[in-house]
Amino acid sequence: MLTTRLDTGRIRAVRRVIDPVFLDSPLYRCDALEPVLGCAVSVKLETANPVRCFKGRGTEVIADELGSGAVVCASAGNLGQALAWSGGRRGLDVTVVAARSAPAAKLDRIRALGGRLELVDGDFEQARERAADIARHDGIRLVEDSLDLETCEGAATIGLELVEQAPSADAVLIALGGGAMATGVGHVLKSLAPGVEVICVQPLGAPAMTLSWRQRRVVTTESMNTIADGVAGRFPIPEVLDDLLQVADDAVLVREESITTGMRLLLDHAGLVAEPSAALGVAAVMEDRERFAGRHVVTIICGSNVDPEAYRRWTSR
Amino acid sequence: MLTTRLDTGRIRAVRRVIDPVFLDSPLYRCDALEPVLGCAVSVKLETANPVRCFKGRGTEVIADELGSGAVVCASAGNLGQALAWSGGRRGLDVTVVAARSAPAAKLDRIRALGGRLELVDGDFEQARERAADIARHDGIRLVEDSLDLETCEGAATIGLELVEQAPSADAVLIALGGGAMATGVGHVLKSLAPGVEVICVQPLGAPAMTLSWRQRRVVTTESMNTIADGVAGRFPIPEVLDDLLQVADDAVLVREESITTGMRLLLDHAGLVAEPSAALGVAAVMEDRERFAGRHVVTIICGSNVDPEAYRRWTSR
Repeated sequence: MLTTRLDTGRIRAVRRVIDPVFLDSPLYRCDALEPVLGCAVSVKLETANPVRCFKGRGTEVIADELGSGAVVCASAGNLGQALAWSGGRRGLDVTVVAARSAPAAKLDRIRALGGRLELVDGDFEQARERAADIARHDGIRLVEDSLDLETCEGAATIGLELVEQAPSADAVLIALGGGAMATGVGHVLKSLAPGVEVICVQPLGAPAMTLSWRQRRVVTTESMNTIADGVAGRFPIPEVLDDLLQVADDAVLVREESITTGMRLLLDHAGLVAEPSAALGVAAVMEDRERFAGRHVVTIICGSNVDPEAYRRWTSR
Repeated sequence: MLTTRLDTGRIRAVRRVIDPVFLDSPLYRCDALEPVLGCAVSVKLETANPVRCFKGRGTEVIADELGSGAVVCASAGNLGQALAWSGGRRGLDVTVVAARSAPAAKLDRIRALGGRLELVDGDFEQARERAADIARHDGIRLVEDSLDLETCEGAATIGLELVEQAPSADAVLIALGGGAMATGVGHVLKSLAPGVEVICVQPLGAPAMTLSWRQRRVVTTESMNTIADGVAGRFPIPEVLDDLLQVADDAVLVREESITTGMRLLLDHAGLVAEPSAALGVAAVMEDRERFAGRHVVTIICGSNVDPEAYRRWTSR
């Protein structure tokens, strides 16, 4: 019996307030990847929408609840874009705090979508601190990715679609950062399709949540070193870890080199632009082909927001 | 009153036999393209499916009608993949004739999907001749792209979705080759949303159908010179031209340089891999920004099947 903070009925309910442009994203087999990866591979494509990532599902829920007013969040770049998009349609005043080192393409899009952007030195954890300060000082709503249920429930709607679209899936590979997507999708899968293996994937260079899952207690790290900016955090949230312990069957760590190879394979064999975080699933298969041999794996392509120059470098041969 | 060979009721009917993996493709605004192109741009994304192009919509209709048996088609590469995919699920024996010069990635996929591939010297027109010979000799069904109504009706289902998903569109830009997509989508738009401008786009290097449309009679060309292999033909089909004359508001020709710039813009600003034919719409906007200024244009991203090396070259800066 699952006792996470999530509820499948409520996930079905919030789905109704999400703009359809984010829903029913494509799910299809990529046969051309199969000889390379040694297993049947389907992608759940979360990049074909106005913010090129899955985060709009959650920000729609938040913006719908808040109506007008003001809101602040810390973001590696994708949540900020999505919140600016959702807030912009509802007259919600959106402030996004990000690390100065975040991809320029993501920061530019936050501004273009009308978000007020504040940059901090340091990494995502410093951005989280600053966002909390702003919320306290201005008395406005702080959106905390993965802690706030709406972010998990929004992501969880991917799970509802997965269950319908890929009944033959043996395993689902989910990028693991703060944990909203992993706990959300994982909750739905464990509720509705408990036979499907839920595998979280994180970079070796930003392993805090995976280490925490393995040790069943919060483990923090001093620093991070990964190109997968979308999943790079150092301080796992205890409530999210508790949920992850219930819904994840495994959490694996992959090398940076596998992430870039994954991005290149997705480009060359599937015609898909994946940001580093979105290539974690393919990276995990490449690092453990035996585990997946002959099985049907689904990987969520969770974002495509890349700086063009970096992307060319990562995917060059 | 439209008197094309197509019928909107029948288009709605054939939609029911098409595998859902090809239907309800994403349509969304690409804000990041707008400063560059000077107008509001939405994409209708036909690449997020197992054959990375729109042709599956038509081959599903054909394969459903035929059931088992044998079929042959000429293909620049995308129709062949789609027919092999649709035929493969129904025990239909598929032969594809293609030019030896077609992109290797397309030819490889036809083989991988179980199609019997025959290569000919010359261009698409030689492939058409050879396919007709095979059909005559073997007494099997010849699928002729754009002439066979199923190919137009399948493509036309894109139009049904466009009308629902983009009620605010001012113009729809459609890649023009043999004419199946242009006449299919054009028919639906002229029937259900007659205020929307239907603009066909063809490369200057393969202009036969556009010249025919302009002169209102079939104009053939001696040769072709374009990277947009998917739309490269020299002998327009009279019946298709007759339909196109009724549904197209304009047909424009674009330079090769604009096509590669279009592919690069779609990659850098939208995170989308487009094969050359799929970048024709963006190329058309770039070549005539004044015409589209302040309007809402929809462009159909009709395929993403590219040879990786050529794609890197086209999109490098």
